[in-house]
Amino acid sequence: MLFFSSKPGDFAYFTQALKEHMKDWENLRQALIEFRNDRDWEQFHNPKDLALALSIEASELNELFLWKKAEEANPEKIKEELADVFAYAILLAEKYDLDINEIVLNKIKKNAEKYPVDKAKGTAKKYTDL
Amino acid sequence: MLFFSSKPGDFAYFTQALKEHMKDWENLRQALIEFRNDRDWEQFHNPKDLALALSIEASELNELFLWKKAEEANPEKIKEELADVFAYAILLAEKYDLDINEIVLNKIKKNAEKYPVDKAKGTAKKYTDL
Amino acid sequence: MLFFSSKPGDFAYFTQALKEHMKDWENLRQALIEFRNDRDWEQFHNPKDLALALSIEASELNELFLWKKAEEANPEKIKEELADVFAYAILLAEKYDLDINEIVLNKIKKNAEKYPVDKAKGTAKKYTDL
Amino acid sequence: MLFFSSKPGDFAYFTQALKEHMKDWENLRQALIEFRNDRDWEQFHNPKDLALALSIEASELNELFLWKKAEEANPEKIKEELADVFAYAILLAEKYDLDINEIVLNKIKKNAEKYPVDKAKGTAKKYTDL
Repeated sequence: MLFFSSKPGDFAYFTQALKEHMKDWENLRQALIEFRNDRDWEQFHNPKDLALALSIEASELNELFLWKKAEEANPEKIKEELADVFAYAILLAEKYDLDINEIVLNKIKKNAEKYPVDKAKGTAKKYTDL
Repeated sequence: MLFFSSKPGDFAYFTQALKEHMKDWENLRQALIEFRNDRDWEQFHNPKDLALALSIEASELNELFLWKKAEEANPEKIKEELADVFAYAILLAEKYDLDINEIVLNKIKKNAEKYPVDKAKGTAKKYTDL
Repeated sequence: MLFFSSKPGDFAYFTQALKEHMKDWENLRQALIEFRNDRDWEQFHNPKDLALALSIEASELNELFLWKKAEEANPEKIKEELADVFAYAILLAEKYDLDINEIVLNKIKKNAEKYPVDKAKGTAKKYTDL
Repeated sequence: MLFFSSKPGDFAYFTQALKEHMKDWENLRQALIEFRNDRDWEQFHNPKDLALALSIEASELNELFLWKKAEEANPEKIKEELADVFAYAILLAEKYDLDINEIVLNKIKKNAEKYPVDKAKGTAKKYTDL
């Protein structure tokens, strides 16, 4: 039985799984905080400016699509700008000690109520207009 | 030894770890796509509009700080708007088949070069002005 | 000869022209400041928050185009959101005592140098890529 | 009597007044359209992208305040970015054939109803929370 086998490979499997797990949010959060602290930047990172920085990065992402069709945007540059968006979003979540998985899943639940399938299917209308 | 014990608790430990792992990016991605597909919304979700939606949510997040000091913003509302930001950022990453951990870690590396500790420490100057 | 005629109608014509003139920037500026002062809002209107407010209104304008083709946006709502954009832009110009005509004409001149007709004609490329 | 005098100076006074008048909206509008047409850029200037461009310029304006106190931002750069904001706002107004004075004055009237002086005085609350 897989989980209780004593073959060395299983051990590797689990540590890999745990390490992979660590590579997610928590790992990114730690890397971002280390980067910030190395530069003594926490003094600038109040939530208002972090939110502003996030918005500015989102805008730089949008600039890649300006005057263009969606498919004409440069994917390499999108990667860079989207990474910046995630970086500030994670730093902001950290300021409020938020669990990213939890807040996103909760929001999906709320949106599922605002946009019930039978009313929202196939339309881009705002919930206030459904 | 922990990993090869045959106590049932360990099994629970591992499955929990794996489940937790699943709760991260991949889990959010799946939940968001299911939400989208249930409503037949993929037709609207081209990258240009997803980037625009992301920017609009970032702006709604900023509105919570408008005319206020950072600490006066409502954390409950921040949670909601930040969740929306993550939702669109994840959906956009999915469009380009990007690994979020990878792009953020790569960007930190690049920024570490643009902002070397000895020059960037304690200053909020842009790298072009360092 | 028009300007030196002694017919009363000419007088009306000139005062109308002057009044119309007053209806422009200066008139809007005065109306906005009166609105602001009546509500004792100057205390909130520091340039950083005014710029943020401007950005938020620009974002609300963009929301009218989200998930849509350009021609599907509601012109009545565009009127409202664009008016908000102008209002904050004028209030911000006022903070720095800027002459709107002057700064825009100067910027057009600068852009004409960045985007010379022979290079920029018919392409949406950024000047850095021309 | 001033307006019907035949002194040459009066003529200059009026033409100056009319020229000044022309320097406002209409003059800016014409200069922007000439700039655009010289480069054959009308093909890119659909309202959705113009609104996006406006938002991007508003964001660049905000970047001048990022990590800073309001008074630390560079006024020379603010001038440039604010000019870009006005430029796209005017071009967008032109697309919908809007009279800028009219839409802003109408919006002030609407806001005066949403924010009656007795309720809104001295508070930055949104009208929905008054």
